[in-house]
Amino acid sequence: MSIEYTKPFVDSASKVFLTMTQTQIEAGTPVVKDGVRAFGSVTGILGLSGSGVSGNMILSFEAPCILKIVSNMLYEEFTSLTSDVVDAVGELTNMICGGAKSDLAEMGITLDMSTPVVVQGENVELTQLCKTPTISVPCLTPNGRFVIEINLTKN
Amino acid sequence: MSIEYTKPFVDSASKVFLTMTQTQIEAGTPVVKDGVRAFGSVTGILGLSGSGVSGNMILSFEAPCILKIVSNMLYEEFTSLTSDVVDAVGELTNMICGGAKSDLAEMGITLDMSTPVVVQGENVELTQLCKTPTISVPCLTPNGRFVIEINLTKN
Repeated sequence: MSIEYTKPFVDSASKVFLTMTQTQIEAGTPVVKDGVRAFGSVTGILGLSGSGVSGNMILSFEAPCILKIVSNMLYEEFTSLTSDVVDAVGELTNMICGGAKSDLAEMGITLDMSTPVVVQGENVELTQLCKTPTISVPCLTPNGRFVIEINLTKN
Repeated sequence: MSIEYTKPFVDSASKVFLTMTQTQIEAGTPVVKDGVRAFGSVTGILGLSGSGVSGNMILSFEAPCILKIVSNMLYEEFTSLTSDVVDAVGELTNMICGGAKSDLAEMGITLDMSTPVVVQGENVELTQLCKTPTISVPCLTPNGRFVIEINLTKN
């Protein structure tokens, strides 16, 4: 189910990372997410609903990857996951969903966005209560990896 | 901002815990949440959007509290945070938001619900990208504490 909705999020992420953070991303083949472990050290979650579907977009970054992205974005070098970095993850999550929302609207899917929640911690697990598998898109940047995870289910 | 929307969630939680888990909850005075640390060992997040507002409801439980609640709910004794317990947290998060949604509709606030994400881990921090403070309602049960956190902001 979620696979058909994945492309707008990947396209939006490519644009947002390039224009806001001067970062070219290389998106790999979407796979069904295995297990519930968060991919990276810092993870943005945004709840989506409307048009008969509901779910979440999750962005999860390895620390070196997001530190370089946010350093580029804010024109300041970050070497640890400060509150500025965490807030920037929330903003990027928001912008990427905002871009995808426009493309999804053209596919006839009208979605409203909730507010991003950024999760940090050790051994973090994120379990989604949903009927369909989560699709995970591995993405590579020059400074490390992140994933875009999409779960959208018909209500 | 979020304070006026808090009561429907607390009322719904009282009903859901009593009818589904035979648990009487005692809700304390709502306070502004201080910091970003998750309150408990297991936390349900549900994104809300629509009607010119967006945000999240967060439910976070101490382990003994949720273990007893889910044991009552599923008529089986749970002594650790298994996947059944985690799924039950997602279901309770969903049911409580569903109940609050009806009451909020009577206040003229129409909200759509995303899908719950349940977070576990050590030293978990949850940062919401929002313009207004999060309201936290401390709740007491015979077997421990949990909190209901509401953040709803006008778009």
